[in-house]
Amino acid sequence: MDWIAVDWGTSHLRVWGMGRDGSVRVRKDSDAGMGGLDRSGFEPALLALIGDDLGTGTTPVIVCGMAGSRQGWAEAKYATAPCSPPSADTATRVQTEDTRLSVHILPGVKQDKPADVMRGEETQIAGFLALNPKFDGVVCLPGTHTKWVHISAGEIVSFRTFMTGEMFALLSEHSVLRHSMAGSGWDAHAFEDAVGTAMSKPEDMAARLFSLRAENLVHDLDPNAARARLSGLLIGSELAATRPYWLGQHVALIGDDTLCKAYADALGAQGLPVERTDAERMTLEGLKAAYACLKERTS
Amino acid sequence: MDWIAVDWGTSHLRVWGMGRDGSVRVRKDSDAGMGGLDRSGFEPALLALIGDDLGTGTTPVIVCGMAGSRQGWAEAKYATAPCSPPSADTATRVQTEDTRLSVHILPGVKQDKPADVMRGEETQIAGFLALNPKFDGVVCLPGTHTKWVHISAGEIVSFRTFMTGEMFALLSEHSVLRHSMAGSGWDAHAFEDAVGTAMSKPEDMAARLFSLRAENLVHDLDPNAARARLSGLLIGSELAATRPYWLGQHVALIGDDTLCKAYADALGAQGLPVERTDAERMTLEGLKAAYACLKERTS
Repeated sequence: MDWIAVDWGTSHLRVWGMGRDGSVRVRKDSDAGMGGLDRSGFEPALLALIGDDLGTGTTPVIVCGMAGSRQGWAEAKYATAPCSPPSADTATRVQTEDTRLSVHILPGVKQDKPADVMRGEETQIAGFLALNPKFDGVVCLPGTHTKWVHISAGEIVSFRTFMTGEMFALLSEHSVLRHSMAGSGWDAHAFEDAVGTAMSKPEDMAARLFSLRAENLVHDLDPNAARARLSGLLIGSELAATRPYWLGQHVALIGDDTLCKAYADALGAQGLPVERTDAERMTLEGLKAAYACLKERTS
Repeated sequence: MDWIAVDWGTSHLRVWGMGRDGSVRVRKDSDAGMGGLDRSGFEPALLALIGDDLGTGTTPVIVCGMAGSRQGWAEAKYATAPCSPPSADTATRVQTEDTRLSVHILPGVKQDKPADVMRGEETQIAGFLALNPKFDGVVCLPGTHTKWVHISAGEIVSFRTFMTGEMFALLSEHSVLRHSMAGSGWDAHAFEDAVGTAMSKPEDMAARLFSLRAENLVHDLDPNAARARLSGLLIGSELAATRPYWLGQHVALIGDDTLCKAYADALGAQGLPVERTDAERMTLEGLKAAYACLKERTS
């Protein structure tokens, strides 16, 4: 192994042992996310996953994601947009007990006005730009906290975060609506219909949400349709707010397959073709770009 | 005790032992809400609270609230709006093991289009109308599921439910925003400002929510201001949706004091004076009106 690439989020840890030729020698993951670790837990969690694969020399480790937050392994201060996706030259070095590791945590990106932050997505954007260096347009990264990012001339120009994914999880699993929806059901027509409803009257959200419960009690609304409609209402409301981002733009989606399909369907219904990418590949390409910069600097 | 008034919600049980002259002889409450009981648990929960106060004869018990839902003590089918707040003549009788009880559960109210339901609020409205028989206007009942109700000629003409209260609880206690807000803090200026923001751009909700977190990380937003702003965003969005309900109307608020103050402030900032009432008194007056109807029917 020449170096180690690490994507360390709130709820997951993903590592790749990289060969000198840029190939992946080993890929491992665990649920040892930043959310469940205190500061002293990061090094052991990493060694538990990849310690056996380490050689005797020093191996560079490039980390992106929430491990760099104030509650993480070590705070990697934010770069400020507009900026290029941060690379290894602004990474935070972490002292480890095991001298075989040389850890570099990549910074996230913040924006002053409107205040916003990202950690991890900037590395996926770096990967996307490494593969599409001339891209000019908008990258949307659907997830717990969906990001919409304006990209121009290789820079993150501005971005905006929406709590759509977290609201879907809270409402479908922890609110009164949980009684009216199926675990993983779907109904494409109900979804598309709800996207349109929310886009035309976004202020009606809190009433439309309760309607899912009431429609179930009064008219036996199908639980699959209810779940798809909840998703459609939330994504539709997001699309109403992000119209200036996507209207007439070139949009690329980076994220989980199922979720990206929902966004692609919703944007497609607005007449917007979108490009879908492989999220894990974008992360790895971003970490590779950061490592290349580190190598160049130290050679 | 001449009869017993019972308000049985999802998370609370409140009973009043009523004297022949209409006075409250005893008032007790517990957290034995409908949410934590199965069907066989209701009678023991009621007896645990008021059994010692029962005489040897049969005592009528009038119940409103979620005890009448499908998952409750016995299903009390909905009346359909437009209708008067349902009274004892459409109540559901429940057979009890203890023959000293004669239990009547009041129905809730449903609406076909848009589908909506209420259980408990119709009794508060009945109480409000008993005290204000000529009222024509809008009653707003802030709570976990806030109701806006058009009242005319003593009838519930139409209504709409908003999940505003439940969303506030989920977001402030269970989402990423919980890291950025104080337990019970408040900031009247931040609240009013957020109401205005949400009313003018309601579609921006999911982004404005994440901004509370980002403002805290990037600009050290005060946790009291964050909590008040969250409330303001949610209530402001509700006011944007309910404009046809309140604009130029006579609005009465029934609900928890702190919450009603927030709604009164938000509506006041729109130039709308509102009437505030004592929620518990409305419930009891509604149950009294139902008992009067029962007595009349059986005498």
